[in-house]
Amino acid sequence: MNVLADRFAFVLFKPKAPGNIGAAARALKNMGWNDLRLVATERLNKRAAHTMAVHARDVLDGAGIFPDLKSAVADCGLAVGTTCRPGPYRRIAKPIRAAAPELVALSSTNRVAIIFGPEDFGLTNRELKLCDRLLTIPAAPDYLSLNLAQAVMVVAYELMMAAGAPIDTDRASDLPALAPAAEVDAMLARMTDALVAIGFLPGDNPDHIMFAVRAMLGRSGVTPRECDILNGIARQIRWFATGGRETIDSKRRAGRKIR
Amino acid sequence: MNVLADRFAFVLFKPKAPGNIGAAARALKNMGWNDLRLVATERLNKRAAHTMAVHARDVLDGAGIFPDLKSAVADCGLAVGTTCRPGPYRRIAKPIRAAAPELVALSSTNRVAIIFGPEDFGLTNRELKLCDRLLTIPAAPDYLSLNLAQAVMVVAYELMMAAGAPIDTDRASDLPALAPAAEVDAMLARMTDALVAIGFLPGDNPDHIMFAVRAMLGRSGVTPRECDILNGIARQIRWFATGGRETIDSKRRAGRKIR
Repeated sequence: MNVLADRFAFVLFKPKAPGNIGAAARALKNMGWNDLRLVATERLNKRAAHTMAVHARDVLDGAGIFPDLKSAVADCGLAVGTTCRPGPYRRIAKPIRAAAPELVALSSTNRVAIIFGPEDFGLTNRELKLCDRLLTIPAAPDYLSLNLAQAVMVVAYELMMAAGAPIDTDRASDLPALAPAAEVDAMLARMTDALVAIGFLPGDNPDHIMFAVRAMLGRSGVTPRECDILNGIARQIRWFATGGRETIDSKRRAGRKIR
Repeated sequence: MNVLADRFAFVLFKPKAPGNIGAAARALKNMGWNDLRLVATERLNKRAAHTMAVHARDVLDGAGIFPDLKSAVADCGLAVGTTCRPGPYRRIAKPIRAAAPELVALSSTNRVAIIFGPEDFGLTNRELKLCDRLLTIPAAPDYLSLNLAQAVMVVAYELMMAAGAPIDTDRASDLPALAPAAEVDAMLARMTDALVAIGFLPGDNPDHIMFAVRAMLGRSGVTPRECDILNGIARQIRWFATGGRETIDSKRRAGRKIR
C-alpha cells in the first residue's frame, strides 16, 4: 500500500449513479488510494455500488458522507476542483499531468481534496469558488466530458504515477539481460552453417540474407535463453541435414532440452 | 479529431458486460480514438451499452465484430496484449507509460492492436501467444485488476498523451513497416511445423519454446522481407525433413529466391 494512501481525498459532489460511485472506489484502490468522500448523495443504492466496487468494497464502505462540499473538505489544506468545460473560472485549470507532481509534493504536508462534479453538468461556478485550484483532464475536442468514474481513474492514476508507481520488483527489470555479442555471433555462424547445409543459403554467399536476420535480431536483442533456443534449432537442423551423423558441433546432443 | 484516430485498434476479447463495452467506446472517443473491435461477444445488450456510451454511440455502433482474435487483428502490424497478472510469460510486459511513445511512433506506419481480455480473468496464455508485445497498467499490489473500461481509458489516455507529444519525425521514419499479424502468425505456424518435423520441438507441446521465439520477434517486429526469409527457412527445413517430398506448403519451390 502506498504510504500516501490517505493524503488525497477524492470527493464526489452530488454523484448520481451508484455504479459510478462503486467504480470510483475500485479505481482508487487500484491506484493505491483509500479516501473516498460523498457529498449530498441522493440515496445510495448499495447493491449497485458494490457490484462495481468488486474488491474495493472496503473503500466504498469506508467512504465519508457529507451534507455539503464545505464540510467535506474541511480537514484538507488544499481543495482542487476538476473541470472539463471551458468557462470564465476555468481558464486557469491545469492539465492533470502537469499538476500532479506539485500536488503530490503538497500532499506530504497537507491533505489534498480532489473534487469531482455530478455526471451531468460537472462542478458549477458555485463549487469552483470553493476550490483553491482547478485541474482538467485533456480530452478530444469532439467529446470532452468523461464518465465520472473514468475521470476519477485518470486523476488517481496520474497521482499514483507522480507519487512513484508501486514498485513491483518482478517487473522493475523489464529490460531483459542480453546475451554477450560473442555468443550471438557464434550462434549466427552456427545458424548460417545449418542453413547452408539444407541448401537454404548459397555456400558461396550466405551473408546477404544472414545480414537481414542479424538486423532483425539486433532490433530485439537476444537474451541468453533465446540464444540457447536458436543454437538448439541450428544444431538440430545441422544434425538432420547430415543424416544424424555426429559433427563437432553436436557433441552436446543436438536436440537437448531447453528450459 | 486526432489524425491518428484509427491507427490504434482497441480490441475487446470476449467482453461480458455491455456497460463496459459502452464505457470503453466513450473512453475512446474522449481520447480521440475511434476503432473499437469486439471479439466473440456473447450477445450485446445494445441498450445497456448505449447508456454507458452516451455521446460515443457512433464509436459503439461502428465497432467491428469478429469471431476470433486472429481475424480481429489480421490487418494490424503489431498486436499488443494487456495484462495485470504476474506469470511466466508476463515478465516482459512493459508499463503503458513507457510503452506509449514507441507504440505511437510505430502507429505511423502500422495499425497497432491493443487487446483487452474479459472482465473476470483477462487474457489467457492462449491469447497472449498471439500478441507480439505485452503491456501492463501499473496498479497497487493490493488490487491489480482494473475494470475493463477503466483499463481501456488509461491506455487510450496514455496513447493520446504520447501522440500529442512533439512527433519526432526522424525517429518515426526509421521504424520499418511491419508484416501484418496474420502473415506473421502463418509464418510462425509454418516454423513450428518445421521444427516439430526435425524433432526440435515436441509435437504435443511446441508452444512453450515458440512463445519465446514470438516474444523475441515481437520485440523487434518483423518486416515483410524478414517474414519471407523466415518462411523460406521453415519451408526448406520442412522440405529437408520430409526427404524432399512435395508438401502442400512447398508448391512454391522451397528454396525460392529471396531478394
